[in-house]
Amino acid sequence: MDDRTDNLSVVVHGPGDLRLENYPIHEPGPNEVLLKMHSVGICGSDVHYWKHGRIGDFVVKKPMVLGHEASGTVVQVGAMVKNLYPGDRVAIEPGVPRDIDEFCKIGRYNLSPTIFFCATPPDDGNLCRFYNHNADFCYKLPDNVTFEEGALIEPLSVGIHACRRGGVTLGSEVLVCGAGPIGMVTLLVAKAMGASKVIVTDVNSSRLERAKECGATFTLLIDKESPKEIVSKIDSLFGNKPHITIECTGVESSIQTSIYATRPGGTVVLIGLGKETVSIPLVHAAVREVDIRGVFRYCNTWPMAISMLASKLVNVKPLVTHRFPLEKALEAFETSSRGEGLKVMLKCDPDDQNP
Amino acid sequence: MDDRTDNLSVVVHGPGDLRLENYPIHEPGPNEVLLKMHSVGICGSDVHYWKHGRIGDFVVKKPMVLGHEASGTVVQVGAMVKNLYPGDRVAIEPGVPRDIDEFCKIGRYNLSPTIFFCATPPDDGNLCRFYNHNADFCYKLPDNVTFEEGALIEPLSVGIHACRRGGVTLGSEVLVCGAGPIGMVTLLVAKAMGASKVIVTDVNSSRLERAKECGATFTLLIDKESPKEIVSKIDSLFGNKPHITIECTGVESSIQTSIYATRPGGTVVLIGLGKETVSIPLVHAAVREVDIRGVFRYCNTWPMAISMLASKLVNVKPLVTHRFPLEKALEAFETSSRGEGLKVMLKCDPDDQNP
Amino acid sequence: MDDRTDNLSVVVHGPGDLRLENYPIHEPGPNEVLLKMHSVGICGSDVHYWKHGRIGDFVVKKPMVLGHEASGTVVQVGAMVKNLYPGDRVAIEPGVPRDIDEFCKIGRYNLSPTIFFCATPPDDGNLCRFYNHNADFCYKLPDNVTFEEGALIEPLSVGIHACRRGGVTLGSEVLVCGAGPIGMVTLLVAKAMGASKVIVTDVNSSRLERAKECGATFTLLIDKESPKEIVSKIDSLFGNKPHITIECTGVESSIQTSIYATRPGGTVVLIGLGKETVSIPLVHAAVREVDIRGVFRYCNTWPMAISMLASKLVNVKPLVTHRFPLEKALEAFETSSRGEGLKVMLKCDPDDQNP
Amino acid sequence: MDDRTDNLSVVVHGPGDLRLENYPIHEPGPNEVLLKMHSVGICGSDVHYWKHGRIGDFVVKKPMVLGHEASGTVVQVGAMVKNLYPGDRVAIEPGVPRDIDEFCKIGRYNLSPTIFFCATPPDDGNLCRFYNHNADFCYKLPDNVTFEEGALIEPLSVGIHACRRGGVTLGSEVLVCGAGPIGMVTLLVAKAMGASKVIVTDVNSSRLERAKECGATFTLLIDKESPKEIVSKIDSLFGNKPHITIECTGVESSIQTSIYATRPGGTVVLIGLGKETVSIPLVHAAVREVDIRGVFRYCNTWPMAISMLASKLVNVKPLVTHRFPLEKALEAFETSSRGEGLKVMLKCDPDDQNP
Repeated sequence: MDDRTDNLSVVVHGPGDLRLENYPIHEPGPNEVLLKMHSVGICGSDVHYWKHGRIGDFVVKKPMVLGHEASGTVVQVGAMVKNLYPGDRVAIEPGVPRDIDEFCKIGRYNLSPTIFFCATPPDDGNLCRFYNHNADFCYKLPDNVTFEEGALIEPLSVGIHACRRGGVTLGSEVLVCGAGPIGMVTLLVAKAMGASKVIVTDVNSSRLERAKECGATFTLLIDKESPKEIVSKIDSLFGNKPHITIECTGVESSIQTSIYATRPGGTVVLIGLGKETVSIPLVHAAVREVDIRGVFRYCNTWPMAISMLASKLVNVKPLVTHRFPLEKALEAFETSSRGEGLKVMLKCDPDDQNP
Repeated sequence: MDDRTDNLSVVVHGPGDLRLENYPIHEPGPNEVLLKMHSVGICGSDVHYWKHGRIGDFVVKKPMVLGHEASGTVVQVGAMVKNLYPGDRVAIEPGVPRDIDEFCKIGRYNLSPTIFFCATPPDDGNLCRFYNHNADFCYKLPDNVTFEEGALIEPLSVGIHACRRGGVTLGSEVLVCGAGPIGMVTLLVAKAMGASKVIVTDVNSSRLERAKECGATFTLLIDKESPKEIVSKIDSLFGNKPHITIECTGVESSIQTSIYATRPGGTVVLIGLGKETVSIPLVHAAVREVDIRGVFRYCNTWPMAISMLASKLVNVKPLVTHRFPLEKALEAFETSSRGEGLKVMLKCDPDDQNP
Repeated sequence: MDDRTDNLSVVVHGPGDLRLENYPIHEPGPNEVLLKMHSVGICGSDVHYWKHGRIGDFVVKKPMVLGHEASGTVVQVGAMVKNLYPGDRVAIEPGVPRDIDEFCKIGRYNLSPTIFFCATPPDDGNLCRFYNHNADFCYKLPDNVTFEEGALIEPLSVGIHACRRGGVTLGSEVLVCGAGPIGMVTLLVAKAMGASKVIVTDVNSSRLERAKECGATFTLLIDKESPKEIVSKIDSLFGNKPHITIECTGVESSIQTSIYATRPGGTVVLIGLGKETVSIPLVHAAVREVDIRGVFRYCNTWPMAISMLASKLVNVKPLVTHRFPLEKALEAFETSSRGEGLKVMLKCDPDDQNP
Repeated sequence: MDDRTDNLSVVVHGPGDLRLENYPIHEPGPNEVLLKMHSVGICGSDVHYWKHGRIGDFVVKKPMVLGHEASGTVVQVGAMVKNLYPGDRVAIEPGVPRDIDEFCKIGRYNLSPTIFFCATPPDDGNLCRFYNHNADFCYKLPDNVTFEEGALIEPLSVGIHACRRGGVTLGSEVLVCGAGPIGMVTLLVAKAMGASKVIVTDVNSSRLERAKECGATFTLLIDKESPKEIVSKIDSLFGNKPHITIECTGVESSIQTSIYATRPGGTVVLIGLGKETVSIPLVHAAVREVDIRGVFRYCNTWPMAISMLASKLVNVKPLVTHRFPLEKALEAFETSSRGEGLKVMLKCDPDDQNP
């Protein structure tokens, strides 16, 4: 039996103002399911909204529930829902298009300007006990995929979308700049797509250690070298220039390195975002037909990610380094904000705190 | 020291007439390298030319050296060769375009009507001691890739080209019809490209056994079922229709099965070739936008295959089940023609018969 | 002022049973607009439902309004509609996905199995005075595009989708088999996409006459020739094999011709549908890597078509050869069914019967 | 009868040192044809080599014949040449790969680092009376295409390659920044590929006048506006953001404009090259998935361009504004360098100075 009077929710009210509050539970709409939340990861953006009350033009103007890396169990289905049943364990894709607009119609719904997105103001997230979501954006988990793996599909999706936009395929040689959580999932995905060599760079040697454990062919510690010096080191380690570079830091010099490092005809994918305007060697990219492509969130990644997890193509479990029950959310946010470990997971179901 | 007086060669003179003869050794042309051959696999087409003296419109009208799955060592380089040096161990791509025609220019040189191709009449193959080949189509093997792996890149290339034309990628669900050598390399390649589920069908249970060992998620033994009955079994095993079907048998009923089996919007790739004209449920393919694509040999696969082998993404070594020294070529052909084992390898270097 | 008591509708009740009836008018749902219909073309499928009460597995089991080539004026908008206003003139895309399923998410919503589609049983069409439709699938017409051009976007979309799936681009050399309405729009679209040469074949010389007027580079009258004889004629007219063949007849021998006619590496697109199972020279397609691709309706074509029409890239006006007021629908269906002219247009607005 | 003693050639010896010299005529190599040159356009790069003796890292270290926009007549064929005969009128693609390297094999031979390219040091061009060229890179002109149209295929190819890399297709809405010769051919090609709206910007109103004549839907005169102000003007003229922007100026502010102007999910193509490093709003491109793609020369454009010209899809004849006989080359270079007109054509055949 679910206790549907308790809907403890992690709510940001403004910069530095994070509260645990009991929110009402609503009946699911006709296309929605009501979910009992199980595991929700804390993302850098959640921390940023808590600390600063905004990210760029997205401003927390009214209280907003945080959380968008999530999984749970269906407890009730709306009148029109055909694909899910109570008891189904699901992973939640946080972006749900509101309109079938030109972007949605061509399969790039992540670009839809009116999309609903969990924990992007003003849309509430799912760091709570009970949550309604569009049933078409809840994906049933096979028995051999855990709730936490389900929650980790969200960061994994960034890696999938980036590798796909970069064209990673069998035999690709890939440079990943940055060994944080996103660099790490990108590495895992690139390998799963058949990349034969992946080199990972970072300024932190313990992160590179971890990259090595996750299957990086080479790692390169960056100190004070210029972009061209770094490229020369990559060239000699790799024996060739990478076909694809996936930039996960947003740092200007690393973007410059990405361009110099990539093979003619190759692609630089930008995940990391830094300052608005950057100086880059654009002619060097253009005359070698090195394409520069950004990513905005992701689309069409959940089914692919579930397949990967179910068939054990990737192991994301080691990414979870901390767990807290939902009622200790503030402590969890403190931990995440100190940059300890890799992924802090909140456990929303008082009766099941398992992975 | 190479003994350049001995160039024992396996020559077909006509149907059933296979001879071992000493062929002259020529200086390499300006863009060629002279190779000391090491390992050459016997392909079904080699056996077919021996038995029948022809394959379709390709007729053996003058004596022709057989062999096109090959690797060896550079012993001399032509005047214009810049990418290779004596001592380099290389895998040989057997197709070399003679003209930079419209197909070559767009990167589909396998379709060039004037292409040179080892052991397709009238072009000589490389089942011999010494052989000249265009240097741009010899690919240096890394130290951790054996000569036999190098020779196996040829059949592997068929699988790569087919998977690539089928669009296999991360999370693809794939049906492979036929568990012979080509079905097996297709399975290996599909997995390396990120396919999450692969089902293999065959009429022979021991072949399916081997498919299971090579990583097939499911196998299905075909007996006397109709195409629609087979599809119904695949559906229940798979829980969904495969995105991509790769047909390796050429049998009419299997081609029909491929079309019925594939998910709307998916692709059927035809590798197996049977009778000229077949009856197929074309409307069923068309209205579900299931594309039907053939493959002719391959292009742009050697670098990718070497990357795969060097990074241990696939293990092709178990495919070699028999080895014979070149001077026992007739015995080797008999063995291959009896359908024993999977791949028969001829060892052309009297001083090094290692894999 | 609209008279909202009159909603004369063209309703098929079963084979041969077509009636004009007054249907109720409903308030538009939250995402819908209520449209005053203006011009609706009669399609071969409308005639087929009237004559036979079914097309394949789609059976008229309860009375169904016909019509799906349509345009009209918004008279009322649902509560959530943001993109349209009363008075907007719109073209109607007849297929509206009911679920955001896997096909919809990747931009191929035409393959969605649960899609709503005007005048495909059991979904009502829009051959009536007033009609509700999803606002996201109504496209505003610029002032310089007429209602009839708006209605003709539906057949035009078949040509666009086919040319796009065939990869028609600048300099493409195209064979169109069949000079009926669909062959004609395919010809127009191929030219607009930059095809440099288009040859059209048919068994009817007056249709070929019209193809010539619409811009065909060559036409070829088919009599009793075999597929290979036809191909030989095409080759000599064309001076080369076409890159792309678009088959609009569904006739077995024409499908065979399409395969023989197409250049290696090219594509055969199947629009015409004939008998379930056909005999085709599949090996000939496969070893030359000629892809065979079907089309099912269309997706993402309306905006493109409106752009074409607004910029006068194509002239579809001559396609309309007959016009009838809605109340003479039975006469219009008789005319269409006799195969007279090209396109019969029904005029649904008693106050405006202009094109 | 050809007078093969006169091979007047336009030779640059160093900065500012342009001479007319009689060069020897060589027998064509086995894969070459000997051409009697007819029409050769002067390109900005020819003028630049004359004035500065270099472009970037390409330095004139020994005398080099200029010219690479060329057409002529075959007068002799090499031993291996099968596709051409004496008397054939041909257009010349100036880039010929020397090696079948990784770029050539995948159909992107323009990226081959060892490619031969007319009038790029140290390779001689074809501004002379007689010239040898690889037969696979000479394309036969149909009777209804003039020599000058043949010579103009070179600049046209830049537009084709750019539009193709940008994905211009039916209904594309395109912004072209810069109305010089390259902007103009880009406009013509975009229209021929089915672009429904093209807006052209420039700082020079008479150039915009010409763009209007060539089919620009809108033109916008740029004065001192900021990139965002320009974008706001484009938005209101266009009624929507362009799908594709093709930047032909290389000016930093114009590159910034290109990024701000392009629709989410669209593409910016960079043709114009300016300073090595530029400041651009990269985050704005990345989060809207606006891809940035350069072009380096072109590949696979000649057959397409000849098709276009033969079928009268584009009219490039008005681009030629001046003509000089070869012996007045210095005067022609002076004219071109003064920026008068659009294209200066040199007439190399003393017996035929027609277009």
